[in-house]
Amino acid sequence: RVALESPARLTLGAFALTILLFTGLLSLPFATTTGHRAPFIDALFTSTSAVCVTGLVTVDTGTFWSPWGLAIIGLAIKVGGLGIMTLASLAGLAVSRRLGLTQRILAAGESRASGLGDLASLLRTVIIVSTSVELLIAAFLIPRFLTLDYGLAKSFGYSLFYGVSAFNNAGFTPDPVGLYPYAGDAWILVPIGLGVFIGGLGYPVYLNLIRQWRNPRRWSLHTKLTLVTVTVLAFISAAFLAVFEWTNPDTLGDHSSGKTIGNIFFQSINQRSGGFASFDIGLAREQTWLLEDVLMFVGGGSGSTAGGIRVTTLAVLVLAAWAEARGRRDIEAFGKRIGTEVLRVAVSITLMGLFVVIVTTGIFMWQTDIALDRALYEVVSAYATCGLSTGITGSLDSDAKMTLIITMYLGRVGSLTLASALMLNRQRRVIRYPSERPIIG
Amino acid sequence: RVALESPARLTLGAFALTILLFTGLLSLPFATTTGHRAPFIDALFTSTSAVCVTGLVTVDTGTFWSPWGLAIIGLAIKVGGLGIMTLASLAGLAVSRRLGLTQRILAAGESRASGLGDLASLLRTVIIVSTSVELLIAAFLIPRFLTLDYGLAKSFGYSLFYGVSAFNNAGFTPDPVGLYPYAGDAWILVPIGLGVFIGGLGYPVYLNLIRQWRNPRRWSLHTKLTLVTVTVLAFISAAFLAVFEWTNPDTLGDHSSGKTIGNIFFQSINQRSGGFASFDIGLAREQTWLLEDVLMFVGGGSGSTAGGIRVTTLAVLVLAAWAEARGRRDIEAFGKRIGTEVLRVAVSITLMGLFVVIVTTGIFMWQTDIALDRALYEVVSAYATCGLSTGITGSLDSDAKMTLIITMYLGRVGSLTLASALMLNRQRRVIRYPSERPIIG
Ligand SMILES: [K+]
Ligand SMILES: [K+]
Repeated sequence: RVALESPARLTLGAFALTILLFTGLLSLPFATTTGHRAPFIDALFTSTSAVCVTGLVTVDTGTFWSPWGLAIIGLAIKVGGLGIMTLASLAGLAVSRRLGLTQRILAAGESRASGLGDLASLLRTVIIVSTSVELLIAAFLIPRFLTLDYGLAKSFGYSLFYGVSAFNNAGFTPDPVGLYPYAGDAWILVPIGLGVFIGGLGYPVYLNLIRQWRNPRRWSLHTKLTLVTVTVLAFISAAFLAVFEWTNPDTLGDHSSGKTIGNIFFQSINQRSGGFASFDIGLAREQTWLLEDVLMFVGGGSGSTAGGIRVTTLAVLVLAAWAEARGRRDIEAFGKRIGTEVLRVAVSITLMGLFVVIVTTGIFMWQTDIALDRALYEVVSAYATCGLSTGITGSLDSDAKMTLIITMYLGRVGSLTLASALMLNRQRRVIRYPSERPIIG
Repeated sequence: RVALESPARLTLGAFALTILLFTGLLSLPFATTTGHRAPFIDALFTSTSAVCVTGLVTVDTGTFWSPWGLAIIGLAIKVGGLGIMTLASLAGLAVSRRLGLTQRILAAGESRASGLGDLASLLRTVIIVSTSVELLIAAFLIPRFLTLDYGLAKSFGYSLFYGVSAFNNAGFTPDPVGLYPYAGDAWILVPIGLGVFIGGLGYPVYLNLIRQWRNPRRWSLHTKLTLVTVTVLAFISAAFLAVFEWTNPDTLGDHSSGKTIGNIFFQSINQRSGGFASFDIGLAREQTWLLEDVLMFVGGGSGSTAGGIRVTTLAVLVLAAWAEARGRRDIEAFGKRIGTEVLRVAVSITLMGLFVVIVTTGIFMWQTDIALDRALYEVVSAYATCGLSTGITGSLDSDAKMTLIITMYLGRVGSLTLASALMLNRQRRVIRYPSERPIIG
């Protein structure tokens, strides 16, 4: 009930507390490999990045943090991810319950779940789905790491860490140099890539798919929009990546065709929000950075741990432009009408995102004297909680790190709060006609 | 009637023909100071830039072109500007006539003008207003140039050129190094700045102000939105410019405070679409470029020669977000409701603009290997027909020049066509309730 009544304060406070808690844990001496306390700003940065499942790092995760430190980071990702999924889904549920009023009057057969029942079942589904996928990814990875002679403890630890990091779209890697050494290793990239893809769809899609797996026609508009948009974006970005990077010897140019295509798709899935990279983004062409700026800004699915303005927000904007171009009175998709109030939410979220990104980029450039290309990439990555970087994060001073910390918090918690607040902010609604809305933001 | 029925084809064709005509004229040997034919790509670039009132130049206007060449450019600006204002206003009129149906039923007292009468009066107003303001600017400038010992012919020629260039937001300067030498010269900067400001408001605003000069309360929503938005943007951009450039010795840092403030406001008026600069943009801080990218993209008023997505488009997007934040059912401003179909037009135009700018920037970077900061600035300047540059235009190869030519044409003619098409594309409208719409795009 509290969560439904003041989601904004709850979200803002809970995340701030969680971040501080994990900052404290990461400040313990045994969290680092050297046994010395981590600098406060780096502990805070890592904790924020983990809880917000962003993946930007100021210190190399695999070499700076001890196994204890890695466990703390993994736990922070798990806790942050659960919180994000639950709160984002709560807002979505609350909206669909309120909007559902009219639909229930029309279609009286629907069962009415109580608020608490919904919350409990939501939490249960979120925990079951996320933990299952995480364990599944780990189960696939363990034998591979064993065959690479990583030893039993490290194989299990790494696999679990990758499972949690992948499903929650966190992008943290326990390996010192990230995934570059596995660029040709489908056994590792495929489970991680699938985990990122599934994790980026979001709870409302899982719930719908679990209930209606066999009846694609009865999938909700939200599910269809999410699936179509992520698929279209994956192929568009793969095509552009192929154009830009196929001949770049510093990234994919020296691979075989098959390996290049595999890495292109891995990257095209990860660049929206996953944050894993199988090649060095810092050596990619500038056009690739620009492409990824756009894709990171769009982000993943609503109610998922992926960030950005969310794919359904983009879909609604494009559908509105499409309806306008065709002279249609209503915004339509898959035989459903999308209310104009949804377009307004989409516009609000997009404007807010553009505003924060542009202002923060200006501040960041002022603080660091870094040029627009890398600065924009870094800020979009922080705001959209993507976690990819052109390689500048580690060498920033404390002020610039603090800017990114605030951007990560704003991008994650601010967006969550804004979306919830906007979607719940519908007191004076007048019943007009049945309409179905995808969840925005 | 033709203009009302197929504005798209008329606009696209007329502009292409006009551009080719002036390309031909600029290719005549006596158009250049050397007496040799200008290279085709530079003649085409200059003609496109003049007809689209953009202001980007690949050759230095003041030294490359002879007085004849300058006269041709001035004429191209005048013809292009008239065409733009007339066509943009036609679409606006057509919409207000169609939308006006409901309002007329409710408020039967309004006089009904025939379509042809509207067109004639529109053309008359456009020509009278533009020529008057242009002559007025010239009248202020002539004595100043005379006191600077420019001689009679040059003083008259320069003043007329600046008058036309300023009112049409073209940004072309007959002076070899532009306005830099006049950075402290209020007698020159004030008339030009005012001309740019008035020119950027647009015909619908003039018409409204001429008719209702004494009754601000009866000004249309469009007029109020335009005036408020340009004023707010002027002050916001002035504030940011002050922060970024006050201490920059390469731009305004060495001026006195008064001179700096004057130049800041001159720049803040010109950076949306005027295209005149009293200091070297190429030496400004990167944050200034980013700020100007945003302001150029927003552009000027609908039905004016200023470009961009137009200030009313931005206003509608922001008002929609504001309405959403307050939980209001309707988008409201100045006691009027703005229909959601207007929001859809605004979203369409903004998305189209973002799409063209991002894709073109990618292509431009691919062609030139110029980094994102300068490339984005150049492309936004071309698309939004602003004409400011960080100084790279002259050194581009023919391919990159052609990309900018197409971008200028798309930004000017494409946007005009898109906006007209969208606004006229309302066949299946059902009369619902009285509503007032600002003109978008
Ligand atoms: K991430
Ligand atoms: K211009």
